[in-house]
Amino acid sequence: MLMRNSVRSISIAAEKLLQKKWSLIPLRPKLVKPVPSDIVISRSQTPRDISILAEEIGLENNEVSQYGSKKAKVALSAIDRLRSRGDGAYVVVSGITPTPLGEGKSTTLLGLVQALSAHCQLNAIACMRQPSQGPTFGIKGGAAGGGYAQVIPMEDFNLHLTGDIHAVAAANNLLAAQVDTRMFHEATQQDKHLYNRLVPQIKGERKFSKIQLRRLQRLGIEKTCPDDLTDQEIYRFARLNINPDTIMWDRVVDVNDRYLREIVVGVSPTEKGFYRRAHFAIAVASEIMAVLALAKNLDDMKQRLGRMVVAFNCQGEPITTDDLGVTGALAVLLRDALEPNLMQSLEGTPVLVHAGPFANIAHGCSSIVADELVLKLAGKEGFVCTEAGFGSDIGMEKFCNIKCRISGRSPNAMVLVATVRALKMHGGGPSVTPGAPLDKQYTKEDLDLLAKGLPNLEQHISNGQKFGIPVVVAINRFSTDSDAEHEMIIEAAINAGAVEAVVCSHWSEGGIGCLDLAHAVIETCEKSDNFQLLYENEMPLFDKLNVVARNMYGADKVELTPEAEKTLERLNDAGFGSLPVCISKTQLSLTGDAKIKGAPKGFTLTVQNLYVSAGAGFVVAMCGEISKMPGLPTRPCIYDIDLNTETGEIESLF
Amino acid sequence: MLMRNSVRSISIAAEKLLQKKWSLIPLRPKLVKPVPSDIVISRSQTPRDISILAEEIGLENNEVSQYGSKKAKVALSAIDRLRSRGDGAYVVVSGITPTPLGEGKSTTLLGLVQALSAHCQLNAIACMRQPSQGPTFGIKGGAAGGGYAQVIPMEDFNLHLTGDIHAVAAANNLLAAQVDTRMFHEATQQDKHLYNRLVPQIKGERKFSKIQLRRLQRLGIEKTCPDDLTDQEIYRFARLNINPDTIMWDRVVDVNDRYLREIVVGVSPTEKGFYRRAHFAIAVASEIMAVLALAKNLDDMKQRLGRMVVAFNCQGEPITTDDLGVTGALAVLLRDALEPNLMQSLEGTPVLVHAGPFANIAHGCSSIVADELVLKLAGKEGFVCTEAGFGSDIGMEKFCNIKCRISGRSPNAMVLVATVRALKMHGGGPSVTPGAPLDKQYTKEDLDLLAKGLPNLEQHISNGQKFGIPVVVAINRFSTDSDAEHEMIIEAAINAGAVEAVVCSHWSEGGIGCLDLAHAVIETCEKSDNFQLLYENEMPLFDKLNVVARNMYGADKVELTPEAEKTLERLNDAGFGSLPVCISKTQLSLTGDAKIKGAPKGFTLTVQNLYVSAGAGFVVAMCGEISKMPGLPTRPCIYDIDLNTETGEIESLF
Repeated sequence: MLMRNSVRSISIAAEKLLQKKWSLIPLRPKLVKPVPSDIVISRSQTPRDISILAEEIGLENNEVSQYGSKKAKVALSAIDRLRSRGDGAYVVVSGITPTPLGEGKSTTLLGLVQALSAHCQLNAIACMRQPSQGPTFGIKGGAAGGGYAQVIPMEDFNLHLTGDIHAVAAANNLLAAQVDTRMFHEATQQDKHLYNRLVPQIKGERKFSKIQLRRLQRLGIEKTCPDDLTDQEIYRFARLNINPDTIMWDRVVDVNDRYLREIVVGVSPTEKGFYRRAHFAIAVASEIMAVLALAKNLDDMKQRLGRMVVAFNCQGEPITTDDLGVTGALAVLLRDALEPNLMQSLEGTPVLVHAGPFANIAHGCSSIVADELVLKLAGKEGFVCTEAGFGSDIGMEKFCNIKCRISGRSPNAMVLVATVRALKMHGGGPSVTPGAPLDKQYTKEDLDLLAKGLPNLEQHISNGQKFGIPVVVAINRFSTDSDAEHEMIIEAAINAGAVEAVVCSHWSEGGIGCLDLAHAVIETCEKSDNFQLLYENEMPLFDKLNVVARNMYGADKVELTPEAEKTLERLNDAGFGSLPVCISKTQLSLTGDAKIKGAPKGFTLTVQNLYVSAGAGFVVAMCGEISKMPGLPTRPCIYDIDLNTETGEIESLF
Repeated sequence: MLMRNSVRSISIAAEKLLQKKWSLIPLRPKLVKPVPSDIVISRSQTPRDISILAEEIGLENNEVSQYGSKKAKVALSAIDRLRSRGDGAYVVVSGITPTPLGEGKSTTLLGLVQALSAHCQLNAIACMRQPSQGPTFGIKGGAAGGGYAQVIPMEDFNLHLTGDIHAVAAANNLLAAQVDTRMFHEATQQDKHLYNRLVPQIKGERKFSKIQLRRLQRLGIEKTCPDDLTDQEIYRFARLNINPDTIMWDRVVDVNDRYLREIVVGVSPTEKGFYRRAHFAIAVASEIMAVLALAKNLDDMKQRLGRMVVAFNCQGEPITTDDLGVTGALAVLLRDALEPNLMQSLEGTPVLVHAGPFANIAHGCSSIVADELVLKLAGKEGFVCTEAGFGSDIGMEKFCNIKCRISGRSPNAMVLVATVRALKMHGGGPSVTPGAPLDKQYTKEDLDLLAKGLPNLEQHISNGQKFGIPVVVAINRFSTDSDAEHEMIIEAAINAGAVEAVVCSHWSEGGIGCLDLAHAVIETCEKSDNFQLLYENEMPLFDKLNVVARNMYGADKVELTPEAEKTLERLNDAGFGSLPVCISKTQLSLTGDAKIKGAPKGFTLTVQNLYVSAGAGFVVAMCGEISKMPGLPTRPCIYDIDLNTETGEIESLF
């Protein structure tokens, strides 16, 4: 009997280790020329039933919560079930310094997985960020890829999806409400009264809740009976004494609402004159979004939520979510949001969409749990391709130094997306502006201009190498490019140390247009793995900033303003010195100044100030103003967007 | 051939008319004494797979979008498919004037459908409002019913559900952002410049969007080529000239955030000094929530969204969503939200949860589409029971005069929920306060006190009769009630004209405890139908107010403040005189003063001011302040709420 059980468990284990090839039945989109609009292409393809796709990639029935027939949430228990299985190759898609139009990172990511999965018959899956809904109604342009390399249905992707961003906003704003309300109640009540309310007698019994006991522990008060506290202890327990000037916690909405950038709250007479200046940011700028992306599991998420610092007290000590009693409530609001969302590409291959933190004030990557899940689902011969926001100096750097530091994962290859257009801009071409027509220099061959822009490409290739990641350059082909231009880029890329450089035409051809890239990625991932982080936790914060700025941006050194110096000291004192750094700077330049193109060397990067995102687990260094709340233009694209009430179809979304 | 087709279509029609009995397999909860907490009961029952329930009640596969295995959205196409089928009986559950603790309307509603469906084997379904999430984190108490008469899982019901409220908030706030942004752009641009931005030349072409053509039509400008407009016409088209003092459109969040009750927006230097006072309300207070509840289909919803008045211009003319160009975008954001949500009761019987408008500034009923859907699903022998917020003077009155006026439906019976506790309060008992222990007078027999409170019951019975609806009184039994007390209420109810009065004990016994009520309702619905509205559309607004106040509240007359008089005139001039009225007054008294209990007669109801909800389709009359933004107490229940990260279960929600 014992033996039979052993044999059985061995065979189960063996089966688990077996690298299952998915029995995927891809969609074959009919390619039309000229390429229609994104929504027309998206709608021309009937998505496969998501429950069938889920089954094909090895998910079990009880691990999948359908949200209609086109999207589903996947339970984290699948990660545990597959723990013993081998991991897929891990590919990060990054880019050179982009024009304000973007160079097609998401499109390339999707083209790549469509090629790997639908054409090379490999287990391959894309992990993407969920885009913010607000900008969808501002200037046209979705985040679901484009042309024949898209996530479908693109309207689900760009709008509510399964409500994760709404959950983040609800949690964020509950915490914000509790900050102001607590200050109000502290300002209007005596110590004893406040304490009696916080720890009330209910049916003759009076006791601390779990979260209050944790606060007592942090205060070093080793009592568990509410009646035992001294007056001094009552004071320390009940009064958070938040210094209003230090409040770092903004409210959020997922709308481009410029009038909320700075507001005065508490103006109603019911708030008895306790008004203050405050801010709204767009929902994805919430630290909670970064927490969602970096949490390794439910428990880790809850711990991180509890650690978030919302302000400092009058003694300069950090006040956290847990001090405000809200940790459990936030975790409850975010429970479902921690499950990644399964969708599909235009070719019917799986895509996980999950979390969407900013790429400047946060780390700009999709979630750790999504990657963990699909590294197992893809299995040892499979591929997980994920995107890191902006150029490699920002997104890829944070992908490695923040996300991989926490997850313990090592990327096997970096795909660096480059365009002729962006390189010409770096070579000194005229400015590129959304909405305005492109200058002719960009639409006809100009090898001189292109040549002058190549140093930008070289810096980004070097960035990958600094982490020990082999770099594959993917040239995102535009119809106006010339072959000579592509050849010049390929030659420069190889000379700079890229393992390969290929031209891709996924936008007009889908996965087929990315086959060369797919083969290059497959080969590259077979090579040895020399991944290393750029710095250790123990390195002082200032040195970390310098390491990143020198290695990734080509800067000579980092300079702190006097204010930043003071903050740095305060953060070190408060015990945040061993966190990684998250440099918030413009994505439009390797320097801190968006106007400076190319790849300048030897400059100084000025850090205006710093703050801690203690829940996410990094120290943010602000280099220049980053608007956390976009506005709507005079004629936002809401003027075009419409609902066909006969068919229920959305019109003119993109 | 022709004949064969005719026969076939007749037989299809016959089949459609056939009143199918559901093949429902109810759950049988194990009743425990003493009755455990709501969440313990909710969790003790494993919900049935919602797709199976959907199939059992006659929904087709393609009409159901699962959101996990416990909730689903139902496509409105099902209404069309079932159009030829007979309608179920339509029962509205209302109550006497409640104590601040509530008298168990939702619980009774659920007990009733559990009895009808799980015990009488009839097709019966409850239609309920979705509760606001904000208060869930304030003071304990959910809206999913309680005890053994609940919607399960209660945490899904009380938290995000399928995201409808989030969608309402997103739409509401997009419109709000567009109001301020448009004012900003008008203030900072010359006419020509503004016009060129609103109607830009794109690739050599310049044209109006559909929504802009509608604005031109409203302005009486019969031109369709943007270059043909005169300077004067350009001015009229491009300038909304919103008078900031008239802006009625608040921003919303689904959080109890008192500091947002009144704020100053636009304080950031980027808004160039164009700041103004503004307000946030809780999300369900948005007019869009009322629109969602009153829309008959997608197209009707879009029309209503377009009609919403957000402000008046400097000439006193209304400015609508459509003028701001946002109609289509709002409809897109709300497309999925218009589909009702299917859940289940503790006994595994179907419940539709959909929309949750306020019951004072709006009409406080769940959606028309949900009712339409299930009146068909239940079929001719079936029952649809729905709830109307607060007492019959408020919720039931609006259910009839607003909701049924729009839907054209007639309720067959009204269940009037009464408690010994509330009637004693109306008899002059001591005040009842949430959180504080109940006075002894409420927990021991006191027939004198009870007798003095009966006039309140009588007024509410009369309210049903005024609409020609037969009234069944449901006494929601408390363990401290005496039989003599119940008998006194029954006698008084019958004397006042109730067709029946029964005692219910669903809270401790589930559906079984509501069998008497179920039988009373079945019998009552068999009787003839004399439903009539209280007034016609053509009646002047002031007279409508008087009709409601006299008939429903027992008032002698309505008085307008001078401000209200002026507004009334303005609303008449703007063409809103033929809308029904929605009186916003305290739910805690039949009068306008929450402190006055019982059933006073001959008083004057003062209307402080009025405004129009043109999209919802009613004129709101404000009688006293109604807070649209609750606050958090010193110790909100977030201190207890927690997430068990091992099991994923929510702890201490209620």
